[in-house]
Amino acid sequence: MDIQSVLNNAWNHREQDLNYLIELLRIPSISTLAVNKADIQTAVEWLLKRMQEIGIKQVHTIETDTHPIVYGEWLAAGKDAPTILIYGHYDVQPVDPIEEWRTPPFEPTLINGNIYGRGTSDDKGQFYMYLAACEAFLRTGTPLPVNVKFFLEGSEESGSSGLDRVIEDNKDLLACDAVLISDSTFLNKDTPAITTGVRGNTYFDVEVNGPDHDLHSGSMGGVVHNPLQVLVEMLASLHDTNGKINIPGLYDRVTELNPDERAEYNQIPYNDDTIIKEINAPSLWSGEIGYTPLERLGIRPSLSLHGISGGFTGPGMKTVIPARVSAKVSIRLVPDQDPVEIAALFEKHIRAIAPKTVRVNVNVLSRAHPAVVNTSSPYLAKTRLAYLKVFGKEPVLMRNGGSIPVVGDFQKTLKAPVIMMGFGLPDDNLHAPNEKYCLEHFYKGIQTIIHYFSILSE
Amino acid sequence: MDIQSVLNNAWNHREQDLNYLIELLRIPSISTLAVNKADIQTAVEWLLKRMQEIGIKQVHTIETDTHPIVYGEWLAAGKDAPTILIYGHYDVQPVDPIEEWRTPPFEPTLINGNIYGRGTSDDKGQFYMYLAACEAFLRTGTPLPVNVKFFLEGSEESGSSGLDRVIEDNKDLLACDAVLISDSTFLNKDTPAITTGVRGNTYFDVEVNGPDHDLHSGSMGGVVHNPLQVLVEMLASLHDTNGKINIPGLYDRVTELNPDERAEYNQIPYNDDTIIKEINAPSLWSGEIGYTPLERLGIRPSLSLHGISGGFTGPGMKTVIPARVSAKVSIRLVPDQDPVEIAALFEKHIRAIAPKTVRVNVNVLSRAHPAVVNTSSPYLAKTRLAYLKVFGKEPVLMRNGGSIPVVGDFQKTLKAPVIMMGFGLPDDNLHAPNEKYCLEHFYKGIQTIIHYFSILSE
Repeated sequence: MDIQSVLNNAWNHREQDLNYLIELLRIPSISTLAVNKADIQTAVEWLLKRMQEIGIKQVHTIETDTHPIVYGEWLAAGKDAPTILIYGHYDVQPVDPIEEWRTPPFEPTLINGNIYGRGTSDDKGQFYMYLAACEAFLRTGTPLPVNVKFFLEGSEESGSSGLDRVIEDNKDLLACDAVLISDSTFLNKDTPAITTGVRGNTYFDVEVNGPDHDLHSGSMGGVVHNPLQVLVEMLASLHDTNGKINIPGLYDRVTELNPDERAEYNQIPYNDDTIIKEINAPSLWSGEIGYTPLERLGIRPSLSLHGISGGFTGPGMKTVIPARVSAKVSIRLVPDQDPVEIAALFEKHIRAIAPKTVRVNVNVLSRAHPAVVNTSSPYLAKTRLAYLKVFGKEPVLMRNGGSIPVVGDFQKTLKAPVIMMGFGLPDDNLHAPNEKYCLEHFYKGIQTIIHYFSILSE
Repeated sequence: MDIQSVLNNAWNHREQDLNYLIELLRIPSISTLAVNKADIQTAVEWLLKRMQEIGIKQVHTIETDTHPIVYGEWLAAGKDAPTILIYGHYDVQPVDPIEEWRTPPFEPTLINGNIYGRGTSDDKGQFYMYLAACEAFLRTGTPLPVNVKFFLEGSEESGSSGLDRVIEDNKDLLACDAVLISDSTFLNKDTPAITTGVRGNTYFDVEVNGPDHDLHSGSMGGVVHNPLQVLVEMLASLHDTNGKINIPGLYDRVTELNPDERAEYNQIPYNDDTIIKEINAPSLWSGEIGYTPLERLGIRPSLSLHGISGGFTGPGMKTVIPARVSAKVSIRLVPDQDPVEIAALFEKHIRAIAPKTVRVNVNVLSRAHPAVVNTSSPYLAKTRLAYLKVFGKEPVLMRNGGSIPVVGDFQKTLKAPVIMMGFGLPDDNLHAPNEKYCLEHFYKGIQTIIHYFSILSE
């Protein structure tokens, strides 16, 4: 196998790869919004066609509760070669606040060595590298050194609802020796990283209903319990003065690291100032007392408020007591918290603290399991050389604060190690305006994957 | 003077009066929204034309910092007759949440003896009765028994900014023996009411800025101080556990009633169940401990949250830490709280409790003085007979929880008693969807005003 000719071919075709990526990025495949349903279908069809052009076999969709999985495989490496399942997600986050984008989110734009647009880093730009790597092999007539299966989902940003069952139902089709995911980041520009754990997530909509119609704050202020005041007071009570989440039972199953594990975990290079500089906030939050920032990001649960709707928020003034308000709230989970149990605890607690002056509803919008990966897997060890060859530096191992709901399901059902090779950067503006992906990482990522496939077959 | 022929003429023209009111109600003269600026001008021109048609003299506009005053007068009653300044406001509240209106807010609709639409009760339907009453006199060739001056403003719903100076600058033009305002309500369907006090108001926009761009709650949750969490915790702290507003100095100038005054004040018929039934909430708020509901509505300050913007509030999920959030907050004031001082105390307090992890801005959107009227004025006493003749019942005296910013300015500068004759009903949905005004009150209100003018000249 002439790996160098594959690497050269991929490098020479890097602009063509970028152009294909741009086509995919132009499709506004936002999974959480009903209005983008047709765009999801467009993205699915684009992927089916592209995979067939590349020479991937058995390309088809697998239906789910929400958006289809795009599946394809190339298994000609033979029974002795390892089989790698490549996971990615073709859906993206919503774009609001749209007015804060410097370039249109679905018109990918190249600026200073980055490509800007929704989905560039999360995750179209990262999973497309695997398609480009496979294409370089097949275009040069070089058999892939490993068997590959593609599993590209369309509901990651809306909680991957029901994917546990889809994986269970298709476990023979998906059987593999390892799962590869690129949906995470380097530690910093100079340091690649392998993600060894992802947090779980539960996402809620909390609704507070008071009077059956909006009221005048002059006529009723002081006598009617303002639902917005009730909601704000309930939400404020969800953190105690030590920065802990104030929900009974929430920490019961949190795995505490022993002193040695904590010491090792805190070896990861980390610097408050780097984050402060990146986000340009006056200072960081002290957060949960007794834990380092790294620990609070990776091994501790966190609760976030995302938005509150209801009442008057337009320009000018309106002295209204809103009849109904609601808040979006989510909790990131760590091993061994169970999202179903945490969702139940949250709902029970909200009902317990709600005053009798209002009616509350709690809707659970998603539940994703936390996961940690087996760091002793040889598939993980072999990433080191691949990164070293292309980026000149071995990756560090780190937990990621975000969630990739399927990681736990893959591990449990496929009994395969999950290797999360990140190629994004911490300042990629994930889920925010001006999301971007570094072009150098896109091109070098393809090279790294080619090396990695080659190393896996040795 | 043949008062009966004027009453009859008005009654016979009541449908014509209603049609004129409907024309005025169709104009979406929302003062707080820049997009409605042309509509404000349309309302002004409509009023100028209508007043001239009626026979009001010296009809012209008086410029202000915001929207013009429409002025007109009829002074032919002579120097011995009293001069009455009639105040009203032609601007209206915004209409959102628009989806909760059962009829379009600017297509006035008659249903079951009510007229539905924005401004029907607050205040177009109420002040137009004075124009209709004057028209009945002049149409029948009957000289008005009193001199009248009209002062119709267009910024009441956005705080009447700068009107104190306009009144000061025009105090000779506006000189009068009493000010008449119909911008309040009956106690209930059976009981007319004279409002003897209005609360003041200060309205704020509180902005919290954290990072300079939205962040991913997975990547940063637990380390970055979420501006929405900061805002929610600050807002929640603005009431203590006794329902008191938790801002140092806020109660310092609040006039406490002595036991006799309190006992008398609490004589006003009031019933929790009536309010619960009207608003259909599970129960009322206990509010500030130690004060009756009537007191909390009329003689105690209250703080209301109106809306929170920023972050994600759309359908579905977005796990964002918003960079910037803001809240609309207002405080109703009672004698002798000073809105300028209270605004300063509020801003100082917000700055004091804001953590160093964020930057806060407090914008003061309006400041209105509280006012109580002189209940011994003969102009007030004479309303009793007018109401009795038409509605068969004398009015009760009550404080109103709402604000009419000019009341204090009129009293101070014109040295005239202010008489607030309400014709609305407590369930008129002021500032809310489905605002309405009772047609019977519109027709009978015109009759009451004709009687009152007649009584004043006796």
